[in-house]
Amino acid sequence: MDIEIKTGERIDELQRNGYRIIQDPDRFCFGMDAVLLSGFASVGEGARVLDLGCGNGIIPILLEAKSAAERIYGLEIQVESADMARRSVALNGLEDKIEIITGDIKEATQLFPLSGFDVITSNPPYMIGSHGLVNPESGKAIARHEILCTLEDVVTQTARLLKPGGSFYLVHRPFRLAEIITRLTAAGLEPKRMQLVYPFVDKQPNMVLIQAVRGGNSRMTVEKPLIVYEKPGVYTKEIYEIYGY
Amino acid sequence: MDIEIKTGERIDELQRNGYRIIQDPDRFCFGMDAVLLSGFASVGEGARVLDLGCGNGIIPILLEAKSAAERIYGLEIQVESADMARRSVALNGLEDKIEIITGDIKEATQLFPLSGFDVITSNPPYMIGSHGLVNPESGKAIARHEILCTLEDVVTQTARLLKPGGSFYLVHRPFRLAEIITRLTAAGLEPKRMQLVYPFVDKQPNMVLIQAVRGGNSRMTVEKPLIVYEKPGVYTKEIYEIYGY
Repeated sequence: MDIEIKTGERIDELQRNGYRIIQDPDRFCFGMDAVLLSGFASVGEGARVLDLGCGNGIIPILLEAKSAAERIYGLEIQVESADMARRSVALNGLEDKIEIITGDIKEATQLFPLSGFDVITSNPPYMIGSHGLVNPESGKAIARHEILCTLEDVVTQTARLLKPGGSFYLVHRPFRLAEIITRLTAAGLEPKRMQLVYPFVDKQPNMVLIQAVRGGNSRMTVEKPLIVYEKPGVYTKEIYEIYGY
Repeated sequence: MDIEIKTGERIDELQRNGYRIIQDPDRFCFGMDAVLLSGFASVGEGARVLDLGCGNGIIPILLEAKSAAERIYGLEIQVESADMARRSVALNGLEDKIEIITGDIKEATQLFPLSGFDVITSNPPYMIGSHGLVNPESGKAIARHEILCTLEDVVTQTARLLKPGGSFYLVHRPFRLAEIITRLTAAGLEPKRMQLVYPFVDKQPNMVLIQAVRGGNSRMTVEKPLIVYEKPGVYTKEIYEIYGY
């Protein structure tokens, strides 16, 4: 196997199945968000899975490690990130399981079959707009801000790509929770399960994990709090378990 | 002062301003819900306040104790509960501050001035419908199940009674969170602040506290978790503080 590693890139271990991933600190490194979303998502045997905005492929690779999915697609608009993801898939020998498509979330329904997925995941840009950004065309800005796609784009595309009864797993920021729930519900994706991620037991949450089911009924479970740090620098047992150490 | 205490009723101390409250274990005793909602609600000086479905008057009395509201109204459909509330108001000499109205939440906009309140609170019935109830006409059933009023009734009446910029404070069960947020938003009451109440740090929440602002923008704060018990039988410091011991 001969995988090109470009200048500035490094290879990190994923602590799962011996998998590794290519990262570029100047472009995109995965965060705890992606790991927690992969832990939160439930992927059945033989499932067809799509990750919208897959960056360097972290979520498809982690979901492949934990599930018996039939096939996992990652859609990424940034050519360099998609290329990095494709090389990481090859690095782990997962070309039969994971396919990375370079393309726009807003056009996902033209790229994939309608009602074709059992599971869709997304760790989308969190921040609204691009005001105040020095360089809104940078890879990092596009990954973090709603420059090339909005929450509404992700939700409306997901609603058409998911099978009835299929699950959408989303990680986002709590300050947008009302909008998230309203948009999901309006699109026929009923929030069924939610978990708030609190950095410390006495701090406001900085992430929210949501499972929404296409055509589900209006009744949801809020999970126990997911607390990240026992004390500064020391993860809680739950976090160690999700990271798979 | 000569307040009638009826058979089966008792007088409980509220640990605030020396206030006391009349309760009837067969009819209505206030729960932690009401206390936490009163702690969560912010009532400015001179505010006009309305509590929808006030039961034995616990929320109006606690809000009077902690604020400099101009006037607090409690609306209660059950004649016996409203009577008990009115006697508790008199017992504490608060007739100039709190007025209990016997009436139906569904008709609140006919009983009170439109856009007339700075703050509206509600600890409404949590459970949907009355299926399986032995006695759906009992006072307890009416307080707990959506027999005489639904969440939609509470939200639509509140949206018309609140001043623009005024706050609605609601306590409810987390399993209805998606519906709560969707209905609030649709009625122009924007969720701005939310706190989940977890009985223990490793358990699912059993209450949610929400502040919605009439005409607010779509951006909310999720507060740190409110955890009730340190260990079985021992409240956390936060709970002792809210209870005012």
